Amino acid sequence: MAAPVVLLTDFGASEYAGILKGVIARHAPGAPVIDLCHDVSPQGVREGAWLLAQAFRWFPQGSVFLAVVDPGVGTERRALAIETEAGFFVGPDNGLLFPAASAAGIRRAVALEVPPGASATFHGRDVFAPAAARLAAGAALERLGSPIPHPEAQLVPLSFWLQGREGEIVRIDRFGNCITNLPALPGRTEYEACIEVGRLPARLKQVATYREAPPGEPVAIVNSYGTLEIAVRDGSAAEVIGTRVQSRVTLA
Amino acid sequence: MAAPVVLLTDFGASEYAGILKGVIARHAPGAPVIDLCHDVSPQGVREGAWLLAQAFRWFPQGSVFLAVVDPGVGTERRALAIETEAGFFVGPDNGLLFPAASAAGIRRAVALEVPPGASATFHGRDVFAPAAARLAAGAALERLGSPIPHPEAQLVPLSFWLQGREGEIVRIDRFGNCITNLPALPGRTEYEACIEVGRLPARLKQVATYREAPPGEPVAIVNSYGTLEIAVRDGSAAEVIGTRVQSRVTLA
Amino acid sequence: MAAPVVLLTDFGASEYAGILKGVIARHAPGAPVIDLCHDVSPQGVREGAWLLAQAFRWFPQGSVFLAVVDPGVGTERRALAIETEAGFFVGPDNGLLFPAASAAGIRRAVALEVPPGASATFHGRDVFAPAAARLAAGAALERLGSPIPHPEAQLVPLSFWLQGREGEIVRIDRFGNCITNLPALPGRTEYEACIEVGRLPARLKQVATYREAPPGEPVAIVNSYGTLEIAVRDGSAAEVIGTRVQSRVTLA
Repeated sequence: MAAPVVLLTDFGASEYAGILKGVIARHAPGAPVIDLCHDVSPQGVREGAWLLAQAFRWFPQGSVFLAVVDPGVGTERRALAIETEAGFFVGPDNGLLFPAASAAGIRRAVALEVPPGASATFHGRDVFAPAAARLAAGAALERLGSPIPHPEAQLVPLSFWLQGREGEIVRIDRFGNCITNLPALPGRTEYEACIEVGRLPARLKQVATYREAPPGEPVAIVNSYGTLEIAVRDGSAAEVIGTRVQSRVTLA
Repeated sequence: MAAPVVLLTDFGASEYAGILKGVIARHAPGAPVIDLCHDVSPQGVREGAWLLAQAFRWFPQGSVFLAVVDPGVGTERRALAIETEAGFFVGPDNGLLFPAASAAGIRRAVALEVPPGASATFHGRDVFAPAAARLAAGAALERLGSPIPHPEAQLVPLSFWLQGREGEIVRIDRFGNCITNLPALPGRTEYEACIEVGRLPARLKQVATYREAPPGEPVAIVNSYGTLEIAVRDGSAAEVIGTRVQSRVTLA
Repeated sequence: MAAPVVLLTDFGASEYAGILKGVIARHAPGAPVIDLCHDVSPQGVREGAWLLAQAFRWFPQGSVFLAVVDPGVGTERRALAIETEAGFFVGPDNGLLFPAASAAGIRRAVALEVPPGASATFHGRDVFAPAAARLAAGAALERLGSPIPHPEAQLVPLSFWLQGREGEIVRIDRFGNCITNLPALPGRTEYEACIEVGRLPARLKQVATYREAPPGEPVAIVNSYGTLEIAVRDGSAAEVIGTRVQSRVTLA
């Protein structure tokens, strides 16, 4: 059976994700296609990189992750296919794939060729989807482009490395939960909180479940990624706080 | 072939539905996964219960319905897998599954075990999706948890039972159509209408098709669930009326 | 293997697309179902027709396109299944299928029967999905309804034929890019621009990639459909211009 192709994009509900699936079905008939997420904020490379790095581990070994958040489409930025210990990552060389691929363990990478006649605005369709489909159908990585020596050092990097307790809001989900990249501190029941955009209580309580939160009040909770999230019970923390993705936040 | 796993959640376009699919693909490779709906209002247990009870009958016999609208996640509320005459229902014991499972004919139910290390905020990923996938792959229900004797009487109930002609808006769809749980009255061309939130014409005309409705005016129509829906031709009834899900409504 | 069924609707994130998939799974178990797009504007027959005519060519030969944008549901408008050189098109006879089917090369068409008991508000579920599923499973077209002689001349037409350089905004995508049906003029670096709804710079620059656009300023770019699109780098052209789908536009 062909490996699953897992899609992560900032295409929202637009037809572009559907067109990717058509191209995949043509190049790899029968390959399962799984929508991981299409509502990465437009041009949100950093947000997409966070999601991919968190989510890839929940998919089958050998999956092909096709990730397209690509504000530099049509420019000289490299197009990548990366082989890792967990599976393949295909997308633009703008940092989007780097945290996931590094965490998965990079083996090899190639620079994909842009075929003559490729659209300057949609490499997802003309470059990345065909490459992902060929990998899902069993093609060898080296057939898809020119090898990149020492990829760990050559690819455009992106990290969520923290300075002390200053982190950021890496993602806001459908419920308005503000997910940070800050790990919880053991034994704490509250944090000294400070946020770049918006307003947080100076002392932010930590709860174990959403149900324990006092109604309407922002609280900290360890989310399913293992980091701290700011949530409001039965409401939207993002609205209550008035914040946005990539706002810096300190929970000390 | 593995049974289809059918998803109903309040995750919207967030990555959480994608992560469920990754977990299912790992536990039941090749099982078809079908998105029934992810735009249940956040924490809308009642809305989700209505949708599931209406929609399950359109899916193949033996389907596994994985439903996650779970404001009590991480608390003591039970996690369920229910075997019915139509297929399986997996999700939290908060009423979400009850109307569908009752209508389908409950055979047996088990309380799922929450594995050590499960996230306190995402049982969909750590409890429900693995159970649903195992059922889709053919596992016997009793392998998944402890039997619940007399499940019809033991599960958290939820009903859309009506007092006379007072019903509610159970769902607002993408077009702004306000779907009620009120059956049509035979031979009627209009209703005396009354609504808790918003404004309705005191006498609401009934039409047979959207095209028959006068532009801009709310009308009643028998929808595809067989109940009355309030609609505005080429417009949003929810906006014109100014109402919301769960508003009580009388059409007499 | 069954042919893919490709879905295009204006159902948004509502459950109706999920119900279509349930019906297809019952009638054609194992047929792959691909979401092309569900966010056609409500009742946007013209927008859906454009998308289908552009997108069908990216799907496998023999695909069954199930398209439902159907403001006339329940009226006398015909229900169609069309066989073309590229695959099948199933949906209402309101122009939605016409540009795609014509471009693909119409072979034959039938008028689908509306079964007794079909909902007057959801032929997608009761008429079109069963027909599409049967085609995907290999049924012959003539088994599904009465032949329509000379379909090219008999079907409700719809075209995007242009008068000189006056075109229209046929689609606005998730990024706010305003896609027109106007082809680029060779050798041009700017256009004299005029728009029905909203404001455009009188002289609109053309760029080759989004990255070349000056921040905040609407520009023209050849998009992945090969037509001109009005875009704003890292922003929403639709918001900056203040326009909407079907606004007429001249780029001369």
